Amino acid sequence: MPIVTLLTDFGLGDSYVAEMKGVLASRSPGVSMVDVTHQLHPGDVRAAAYLLGRTWHRFPAGTVHLVVVDPGVGTGRASLALTAAGHAFVGPDNGVFTSVLGRRDGLVALPTPDGASPTFHGRDLFAPAAAALASGYPLDALGTTLAVEPQALVPPETKYEGKSIVGEVIYVDRFGNLVTNFTADLTPSYATFEAEDAEIGPRLRTFADVPPGGLLAYLGSGGFIEIAVRDGSAARRLGLGVGGRVRARLG
Amino acid sequence: MPIVTLLTDFGLGDSYVAEMKGVLASRSPGVSMVDVTHQLHPGDVRAAAYLLGRTWHRFPAGTVHLVVVDPGVGTGRASLALTAAGHAFVGPDNGVFTSVLGRRDGLVALPTPDGASPTFHGRDLFAPAAAALASGYPLDALGTTLAVEPQALVPPETKYEGKSIVGEVIYVDRFGNLVTNFTADLTPSYATFEAEDAEIGPRLRTFADVPPGGLLAYLGSGGFIEIAVRDGSAARRLGLGVGGRVRARLG
Amino acid sequence: MPIVTLLTDFGLGDSYVAEMKGVLASRSPGVSMVDVTHQLHPGDVRAAAYLLGRTWHRFPAGTVHLVVVDPGVGTGRASLALTAAGHAFVGPDNGVFTSVLGRRDGLVALPTPDGASPTFHGRDLFAPAAAALASGYPLDALGTTLAVEPQALVPPETKYEGKSIVGEVIYVDRFGNLVTNFTADLTPSYATFEAEDAEIGPRLRTFADVPPGGLLAYLGSGGFIEIAVRDGSAARRLGLGVGGRVRARLG
Repeated sequence: MPIVTLLTDFGLGDSYVAEMKGVLASRSPGVSMVDVTHQLHPGDVRAAAYLLGRTWHRFPAGTVHLVVVDPGVGTGRASLALTAAGHAFVGPDNGVFTSVLGRRDGLVALPTPDGASPTFHGRDLFAPAAAALASGYPLDALGTTLAVEPQALVPPETKYEGKSIVGEVIYVDRFGNLVTNFTADLTPSYATFEAEDAEIGPRLRTFADVPPGGLLAYLGSGGFIEIAVRDGSAARRLGLGVGGRVRARLG
Repeated sequence: MPIVTLLTDFGLGDSYVAEMKGVLASRSPGVSMVDVTHQLHPGDVRAAAYLLGRTWHRFPAGTVHLVVVDPGVGTGRASLALTAAGHAFVGPDNGVFTSVLGRRDGLVALPTPDGASPTFHGRDLFAPAAAALASGYPLDALGTTLAVEPQALVPPETKYEGKSIVGEVIYVDRFGNLVTNFTADLTPSYATFEAEDAEIGPRLRTFADVPPGGLLAYLGSGGFIEIAVRDGSAARRLGLGVGGRVRARLG
Repeated sequence: MPIVTLLTDFGLGDSYVAEMKGVLASRSPGVSMVDVTHQLHPGDVRAAAYLLGRTWHRFPAGTVHLVVVDPGVGTGRASLALTAAGHAFVGPDNGVFTSVLGRRDGLVALPTPDGASPTFHGRDLFAPAAAALASGYPLDALGTTLAVEPQALVPPETKYEGKSIVGEVIYVDRFGNLVTNFTADLTPSYATFEAEDAEIGPRLRTFADVPPGGLLAYLGSGGFIEIAVRDGSAARRLGLGVGGRVRARLG
């Protein structure tokens, strides 16, 4: 029986996640359920897309990824199920699947079941669809062709300004590490980084390359340049959050 | 092997939940364990009863529901195991099982094992009992007849005041949505809702029926009327929490 | 298929834990994964060692315990896998395994795989090693002899001062209960406890032995004397945290 991962903004203090898991366990007996996170800021579709993009390919082929970050629940937004690279994905059509849309080999719009709560499609629409996929139902049996292109988020761009590249913070993690939209390819090893008037220096390897409390830039585990403070928080030190500007000087 | 769900006020930062899961996994090899929540306010029996009532019937028959919200641990309060509607329930006799007591077809008082920690019955008394039920032991083998009626919480009442019904908030979720004790039956579609001098209007379908920031009343996914702010918190907007008064005007 | 437990300081809001679980599930299909906690204060090796020491022996023999509290990630600190009492343990050589080192019957230093992220050994080094052990690979096949003794934390000492013993708080739990380094053996039943000028009295059995709001000392579920406030927080009441002094008067 395959795995179903769950990624929501429901928090862990209510019963919403457990109600979804009850539906999954009832309709797909023996399924394994793994939480990605449930602690997204309510409605933070962009963070959901980032975290899903980092995570899905770590799981074995056949995994079903259930994403319910759905500020438009009960509106006309489509409900999706899609397959890509041997994995399946179920959730609202609002951009959460941006990282896998380009690789998709199947996509359907899911109907809303009779009696579904208009405020809890996670339990009444998406979890049943994920359970059906985990149980081996073919994608095409679950819905119909989507008449339009599914929603994709536009990633923030990097821009050249003279001899430097300007980018931005796309995610801040628990430790206050700032994930930027600079890739390794974009920023050669001789580039030096700056943020908010702070000179960070060239890319280093890991936290221990600076003294405790020191700022550093390094290639993060998700493939982007990150800015951190060893044993501290770069977000707090620099006063930067998502959307904050960072600069890579090339000369 | 059936599922054991866990609902406690132990939080996720200590090892208490994991110690219980270790006992479950040791005594009932292959058991699946699903968290309902562990983040209840310490000792909040009423919230535990509400969340259990929403959740248990979403799981397949045969599931064992382990509830350890137990401010009276180590006192004379009884320890219970009961069966209802094909499910089993284990926990203290303090009202957490209010939602299923009326449907029970078996109930025993559990003895306290020798050597059980007087401050951690979750690990040393309730988890072993849940593991035994998950492993197929019959309920009657685990304990003895309870000499008295098990504790049940008295639900807050709704009252008629002239042409309106007065109820109250029974739960506040992560989003600040206010769950009231108004059922759909009690409040006809022409009723209009009020709370704390705020006019909320008639029951709508879902968040998107008001503009962002708007207040609305709707039939929540747990079967009660809820009050919410679209993309915001009704609890914060109205300054209301559990026990706060709400009104349904019928004319 | 055995269980893998996970104990980290990664929090639950990012994807780090799920990325590790994806690796475990991919390399050890069918493995069961149980969280101990992920909410340690970043880099709190001492709390990790305490929680692991309470928890591991509750799980069945064959369980693999994966601990990633690793402020020295990417430095020269060794990466360990060890076996003790029928369980296996994987994590950094920084003292997190203090409670089991004395019982070990095997220990290897793990090599860092090519391409491992220097900031995320949890995913790229430790999770693969834990998956290999869960899949039945012998310990010796995973690494090489560690040339030095593994790191162990020195436990805080208790000291006699005249007719009393002075100890300290080693852990504070969610409820504000203060776990001390006094064992039951060290503090006879006629001892009376004090902390921060507050007279706590002799050891009692459980919370209900004092009125609500009362202070008490009792033998905690982890084998140490604890100080608590019934239905309240001893940490807040006494203003004490880890390292705070406590006293047992013997006469």
